[in-house]
Amino acid sequence: MSSFSRLVRFLAKDGQIYYGDAILPSGTDDIAQVTQARVIQGDIFGQYRITEQIAEVKLLLAPLSRQDIGTVRCLGLNYEQHAKESNLPIPKYPVLFFKPVTSIAGPTDDIPVSEIAQEGEGLDYECELVIVVGKEAKNVSESRALEYVFGYAIGNDVSHRDWQIKRGGGQWGLGKGFDGWAPFGPGIVSSKIITDPNALNISTTLNGKQVQSSSTKDMIFGVAKTIAFLSQGTTLLPGDLIFTGTPQGVGMGRKPNLWLKDGDNVEVALEGVGSCTNRVVFEKPVPKL
Amino acid sequence: MSSFSRLVRFLAKDGQIYYGDAILPSGTDDIAQVTQARVIQGDIFGQYRITEQIAEVKLLLAPLSRQDIGTVRCLGLNYEQHAKESNLPIPKYPVLFFKPVTSIAGPTDDIPVSEIAQEGEGLDYECELVIVVGKEAKNVSESRALEYVFGYAIGNDVSHRDWQIKRGGGQWGLGKGFDGWAPFGPGIVSSKIITDPNALNISTTLNGKQVQSSSTKDMIFGVAKTIAFLSQGTTLLPGDLIFTGTPQGVGMGRKPNLWLKDGDNVEVALEGVGSCTNRVVFEKPVPKL
Repeated sequence: MSSFSRLVRFLAKDGQIYYGDAILPSGTDDIAQVTQARVIQGDIFGQYRITEQIAEVKLLLAPLSRQDIGTVRCLGLNYEQHAKESNLPIPKYPVLFFKPVTSIAGPTDDIPVSEIAQEGEGLDYECELVIVVGKEAKNVSESRALEYVFGYAIGNDVSHRDWQIKRGGGQWGLGKGFDGWAPFGPGIVSSKIITDPNALNISTTLNGKQVQSSSTKDMIFGVAKTIAFLSQGTTLLPGDLIFTGTPQGVGMGRKPNLWLKDGDNVEVALEGVGSCTNRVVFEKPVPKL
Repeated sequence: MSSFSRLVRFLAKDGQIYYGDAILPSGTDDIAQVTQARVIQGDIFGQYRITEQIAEVKLLLAPLSRQDIGTVRCLGLNYEQHAKESNLPIPKYPVLFFKPVTSIAGPTDDIPVSEIAQEGEGLDYECELVIVVGKEAKNVSESRALEYVFGYAIGNDVSHRDWQIKRGGGQWGLGKGFDGWAPFGPGIVSSKIITDPNALNISTTLNGKQVQSSSTKDMIFGVAKTIAFLSQGTTLLPGDLIFTGTPQGVGMGRKPNLWLKDGDNVEVALEGVGSCTNRVVFEKPVPKL
């Protein structure tokens, strides 16, 4: 049985939602440009089959359905230059926090900024390599850790610095966990294609201007080390996501600060994977239920 | 259709795992004492039916299956006396962190202490009222928040203070998220039975000696306020759990500190719900895969 190369989940022109193996147009490796995919049937973390049916992609969705996503883990301060711009020490151990599954969104979804997230200031972007776990992993060694990877994507760990740092009692969950604040995609590139996840260019472009540009080789805890560490005493499950931290260049690290505004376009991109482009949309006040 | 009063999930003497509506023995309201339950068929967060089949309980399990549990949220420092014993200020907003679903365990499961969690010191207990969300909740008002509650349970937010506080870069996820470190149960008492969740005695007993004893009325952010706050800009889903913080008396707050040891028995109890009794089991070193 052949396995996928570039997994996408999409609304097709026939009105159905499918998992598929993307057919890259010539001249690009950005999955965001994909218009066709071979339909996948079955359980993507178990037995599945890449069929001969070619579907026309109308809209790429988050590459895993909410039902297929497990726990969403995130690392903080995992690039040396970003730790420095944050005026925080280089961590000795991975700094772990979580996002709820409701923060997950697709590669072109709007980033909704609700009333509470319009309070204070500090709406910020963070481009991050996302690891998708493919097999149950507990107490795995660094040397075998990559065997547990399903694939890689690019994600944006959208953050509100006031809620994250000043109002959360020091815990970051509140300012990073709002609905739709973890867009990722545009697809998941298999670990058989990306064999060295720590040698990829990663960047953010805000309204057409590049604001983050680095390489995943600058991670403090690389992909294999991260998986090995997080699996100690903890079972990672198929469908778990790990956002692996962001490089320097975030809005908080700039003088003056550069905060996202209503209507901004934020593109995060990862070499060999592609890009997610999301628009910031401030929501109007809603009456409480 | 009648709804459950005290939801249990259990291994029955017939070898099957069921959801059921507990039949309380006379003279107790501790669900841990239950030996019989009416079998429930269907989707417990949707259409279900309490059948006339009475099953014999062999072992109570975590009252929700892993598939039925969504995001596990936890509040920190949510009792005034506990914030004081922790030498931390009374929070202005709820302090939010998360646990992975793999930390969930049943009311009599062992608490496994893996090799990494045997490093350093500070293995601690925290009895907590657990809210189970029953309906999608977004931007709900405090006055209507309790309508979204499925029921209540008691849980233990097992914590390793060194990993939580000293080694996690300030983020608590690492030292609280190990496999099995959130036992809860023994069942879920419907919000139609517990109409005021902020008037319940809550306690921890360690090896037969009471070490925490308080009331949920001492919460800084009560149940309704917590749900209303957390639902701002964030959709709470059926099956999401909210651990609502612990009162004073934790091992970290004592002089000298009182840390859990291999073989200890920890019982957490909540009035009207019952108790979870879990044994601390230090694991032998395992070869890494």
